[in-house]
Parts: sequence; structure tokens; C-alpha cells
Amino acid sequence: MTRLVETAVEVREFVAACRKRGGSIGFVPTMGAFHEGHLSLMRQAARQNDAVVVSIFVNPIQFAAGEDYDRYPRRLEKDTRMADSEGVDLIFFPSVAEMYPKGFDSYVDQTDLPSKLCGSFRPGHFRGVMTIVTKLFNIVKPDTAYFGQKDYQQYLILRRTAVDLNLDVDVRVLPTVREEDGLAMSSRNFYLGPKQRKDATCLHEALECAAKLVDGGENSAARVAAEMRRLIRKVKGTRVEYIEIVNSETLEPVKEVKGRTLIALAVRIGKARLIDNLIV
Amino acid sequence: MTRLVETAVEVREFVAACRKRGGSIGFVPTMGAFHEGHLSLMRQAARQNDAVVVSIFVNPIQFAAGEDYDRYPRRLEKDTRMADSEGVDLIFFPSVAEMYPKGFDSYVDQTDLPSKLCGSFRPGHFRGVMTIVTKLFNIVKPDTAYFGQKDYQQYLILRRTAVDLNLDVDVRVLPTVREEDGLAMSSRNFYLGPKQRKDATCLHEALECAAKLVDGGENSAARVAAEMRRLIRKVKGTRVEYIEIVNSETLEPVKEVKGRTLIALAVRIGKARLIDNLIV
Repeated sequence: MTRLVETAVEVREFVAACRKRGGSIGFVPTMGAFHEGHLSLMRQAARQNDAVVVSIFVNPIQFAAGEDYDRYPRRLEKDTRMADSEGVDLIFFPSVAEMYPKGFDSYVDQTDLPSKLCGSFRPGHFRGVMTIVTKLFNIVKPDTAYFGQKDYQQYLILRRTAVDLNLDVDVRVLPTVREEDGLAMSSRNFYLGPKQRKDATCLHEALECAAKLVDGGENSAARVAAEMRRLIRKVKGTRVEYIEIVNSETLEPVKEVKGRTLIALAVRIGKARLIDNLIV
Repeated sequence: MTRLVETAVEVREFVAACRKRGGSIGFVPTMGAFHEGHLSLMRQAARQNDAVVVSIFVNPIQFAAGEDYDRYPRRLEKDTRMADSEGVDLIFFPSVAEMYPKGFDSYVDQTDLPSKLCGSFRPGHFRGVMTIVTKLFNIVKPDTAYFGQKDYQQYLILRRTAVDLNLDVDVRVLPTVREEDGLAMSSRNFYLGPKQRKDATCLHEALECAAKLVDGGENSAARVAAEMRRLIRKVKGTRVEYIEIVNSETLEPVKEVKGRTLIALAVRIGKARLIDNLIV
């Protein structure tokens, strides 16, 4: 049975007891509202570790003013049942005051990767992510932490943070889990109405089209991006935030698609801001 | 006999072995060039812990361009002998490449305390200090870390960092150790010529004078600071960077001296930038 705790002290006690038995710890940091993507991370964590810790925390400092902090879906009971069925040992569900007590003023940031892709549209977002994940890593002290590829930039940034700050955590990325029609699973899909939900497949379709073009020998990043943009513009009510073709390690734009290349996009549909990517 | 290691991996091995025996770890992060101030921290660490780790690292990212990074005194052999005689178990002496490998880009910062006192004269300094100490804490994972009161602002900032980032380290401050004539011990005193060395007592004299005034009932911060400034100006070749009378927790300037108040100053004498403080 999954245990639910709300304080860092209780997490430390659980972890210390697990360590005493020589157990390894897998960690899945989340904002809750679980879907199959989260569950696949928990499943892998359970396969590769003696104990699995999941955190559920909608982290206020990674949302800018006007973003969806207030309406981000919260469904703890359902989440707990789902985590339980994946063999999660501990859910850490802290309050905002537990994570950011009065006087809190320390932040982790980077100068390079957070300025790219989503970073230019969400100033301060990755600083908030790095800060909370550094805190969570220091509380849970996991051997391995699991993230989904949908948030590939977040994964790269957190891998960098872990190395740079000697956090001694192996940061891993697992494949994006998709709905049957290809839409990347995301808690933000809950914001979509029925029509918008159908339109939202255009992100995946654009990526599939890009992969086919590259497969067929097209190596001009500009031409691939233009074709993607054309496909998405055909769907009324979509607004492209970015379509970028970049080096998968540096996130620097490339002109020619060669080597490991990340094709990433962010599109607004109604109230939802959706992202997706693939590596070719 | 004190062991000397140059890699984080070796420190982690030492710490893990110590933990396995149930031992507690005291940590003294330094830039080397030891004096009695450093030794008093090691002595206390040895009294309060089963093992003592000392790091020696002149941290490039806490020096601004034009500061004394290049000429900061380095004397590893003598330092090792001195640490050995204080019962230090391990010296961590990493290279710059060990701490900041290629691609390093993660920093810890605060918005409030680092803007005060020394922070306004050394932009980026405390960001560099917080970043290296967070890294060192994550490598050494000490129970307790020891800092000198001469660097009181640094202590306050690092105590904040440890709490905010859940570093699980008790950050302690020990009294400033002074030469017989009252000069606060500092590796930067090595920069002083014989005449400057004598002049340098003016910092301590100004603080003593301030304490006497306050003791005698003076509670105007402005009048106390003015008297300190007058005393230091009498010494030719000194240049006051700041004299501040502030709340000892927030570092906010006070008008009236009441409650725990920090009186702090920074004075340049020749090539040396000297700081000192006391709490009344």
C-alpha cells in the first residue's frame, strides 16, 4: 500500500530506513493529475529500484503570472490509487509552505539551456523547475530520477543541474507515451474541449511528417520546419508558439538535419499550451 | 594522518565508509592559507564530530575580474601540516576542472541578502560562494559545517541556502579569531606591508569604539557610524568601502541600535580589502 506523507522529515525517515536495508531508490517528481506517461515512469522506477518515491507538487514558482497555476488539475485521491497500482511505496505531497517557508530566497538557475525553446516563452519557468527539483533531490536522495521525453528540454536542464551541483542522481528520460491517435499524453490535455482534442493531433502529425521528410533525404531544417508550420496552420484555432530544429544536446538551431537532432514545437489550442518533440 | 584527495569520488568513498560506522561528519570549507581562525573551526569540528573534512579550493567564480584570484595565497604543504595537527581526517583539494568541468552552467543565488553589505561592492561574489558551497555540501554531506564570524554575511547567506535547498546541514558560525592587537585574522592580511599591518588595527579599533559608545547609551546608528568613520579617516592610506549598522538577521540598516545589531565595515588598505564586524 502506498504511503502518503506531507513533510520532508517523513520522507527522510522513509529513505533512511530503505538505505539501511541497502535498498536503491527510484524517484518520479510530478505535478500530479497522472496519466499513462507518469505511470510508465513509475513502472520503470519500480523495475529498476527497491523502492519508488513519487512527489506530487504543483510548484508555484515555475508558473509565471497569467499561466495556469490556479487551474492546473489536482486529483490526489485518484492519483494515489493509480500510484498504488504501480507499486509506488511513498507519495510525497507537500504544502507550498513546506517547500517555500517564510523567508525562502534561494534559487538554482542556468544561463544557457533555459533561454532556449520553451524558455523564451516562459521566463523564469526553468529556474522554478531547477529549484524545486534540486530541493526534492536533496530530500529524497534517489539513485535514479525519471522524466518523460515530452519535456525533453526540462530533462536536459535537470541532467545538467544534477551533474553541476554534484547531486549524485542519475537523471533518465523515458519515451513519450501517446494516445491512440498520437497525441502526447499531458495533464494539460484536460483543458481541451472535444473539437480541440481532435485538432491537437496536429502536433504529432507535424512531427511524423518531419520524420518522413528527413527519412526521405530532406536535410534542410528550414524546409522541414516550413512544412510542419503549413500543416499546423491548416488547423483553425491553433497558434504556433515555436517550431524548432536543434542539436539534441545544446538545443542550438541547426541548418542541416544530421546527427541527433531534436524537432520540437509548442502550439496553443484554446486555453491549452501543448508541446511535443521527437529526436531524429 | 590527514589524507589528501583531489576528486569528489574519493570524498564520497571516505564519507560512505564513515557513515557505515555510524560516524558524524564535520566540514570546514576553506580557500586555504590557514591561520588560527581556520584552525579554530577545525578544532571545533573535531570536538563535535567523529570525522572532520576540510576543503581547500580557491573558487574562481566568487572572484570578479580585477579581484585577487590570481594572487590569493596558496600554500598546500603548510596547510596540510596544520590541518594534520588539528586532527583533520580528510583534505579535499580539487582542481578547477574537477569542480567546474566543461559545460558547467548551474548556479545558486538569492535575491535579498547578497545585495547587502559586501554584495554591493562584489557583484556575483555570493552567487559564486553559494554555488561552490552547495556543491561541496552535496559531495561531503556533512552533519555540520563551520564558518567564521569575520565573514558573517557569508554565514547568513549559507545558512539560508542550506535551509532553502534542503541541504540538511547545520551551518554554524564561530567567533572571529584575532591577532594580539585585535586585527581579525584573514588570509588577506598576507597582502599587508609592515606599516599597513599596523594601520589595519583601525578596523578593530573602530568596532571597539562603536561597542563602547553603544554600551554608554548611544543608540543613534548615524552617530556611531560617523565616529567610526572619523577614527578610520585619521589613518592615512585607508579607504572606507562601507560602515554599516544593520539588523543581524535581515542586514537591513537600522536607525536605532537596539536588539541584536551587526556593525560591519570594509576598508581598503593598499592592495588588501579587509572586513570585520561585531554584534552588539
